[in-house]
Amino acid sequence: MEIREVIESDWPQVWAIIHDVVRRQETFTYDPVMGEGEARGIWIERPPGVTVVAVEGDRVLGTAKMGPNRAGPGAHVSTASFMVYGEARGRGVGTKLCEQALGWAQGSGYAGMQFNAVVESNRTAVDLYRRLGFAVIGTVPGAFEHPTLGRVGLHVMYQQF
Amino acid sequence: MEIREVIESDWPQVWAIIHDVVRRQETFTYDPVMGEGEARGIWIERPPGVTVVAVEGDRVLGTAKMGPNRAGPGAHVSTASFMVYGEARGRGVGTKLCEQALGWAQGSGYAGMQFNAVVESNRTAVDLYRRLGFAVIGTVPGAFEHPTLGRVGLHVMYQQF
Repeated sequence: MEIREVIESDWPQVWAIIHDVVRRQETFTYDPVMGEGEARGIWIERPPGVTVVAVEGDRVLGTAKMGPNRAGPGAHVSTASFMVYGEARGRGVGTKLCEQALGWAQGSGYAGMQFNAVVESNRTAVDLYRRLGFAVIGTVPGAFEHPTLGRVGLHVMYQQF
Repeated sequence: MEIREVIESDWPQVWAIIHDVVRRQETFTYDPVMGEGEARGIWIERPPGVTVVAVEGDRVLGTAKMGPNRAGPGAHVSTASFMVYGEARGRGVGTKLCEQALGWAQGSGYAGMQFNAVVESNRTAVDLYRRLGFAVIGTVPGAFEHPTLGRVGLHVMYQQF
């Protein structure tokens, strides 16, 4: 598995991953019926942000985007988002993508990384982020409407470098 | 003082308030050199969001925007932002705007209101939000670069309805 910057020919596979993830409504506060153009605008970062893919040959196993979490006086803290292709789960793709994002943010001089809305029922993600050094700063109760679990909390997670 | 939806002829005064607030870099994680077009795009909400002004005659004393905090499975929680004209501070304009936003969100069926990035050194705002029922859910340490105080925390504040 290799992680590299996204290129145009990756997009159909990246969009397929995004489309599947948002349609399930289990992990992202994105519009579940977002179109391809909107997805591209949200997921493909402009500088100083970066979008990457985890690939094995021509197959995109997952994707991440990273950049400043806020503008102006908040731009020294980074953020990142990750999506893994359904059939590639359990193979450490998310871990690799998160490690890459942390390395990018540290190398770019950010003071830390913040996740603004981690669905508390998404144990795979919460456990992974904890393992890589993130702590839950706080949880907004019931802020995520899960299709089967009902309203669950959204964690704000943070790691200082 | 009256609170009503913003109209086109309010914009020059609203923009003057935004321009002054972001230039000071004490309260908002907005680009301090944002242009008028970007400010309009950020501040003037599209449905279901609303932008209002507090006015006295033709004078705009402050402005607020409100809407869903997130998309999709997060759209049942509202958010809002407030700016008060420098010379109108200390007259309860912020309180009136926040009360109006809470009334709007409750009347629109939202489950609560979340503020994502309240600068902890902005005591006027933090105290006002507490007085109106918000609690600090968590604080991201050092996430705001204040021009004189250095790095201060950003509170996530929340109120369930």
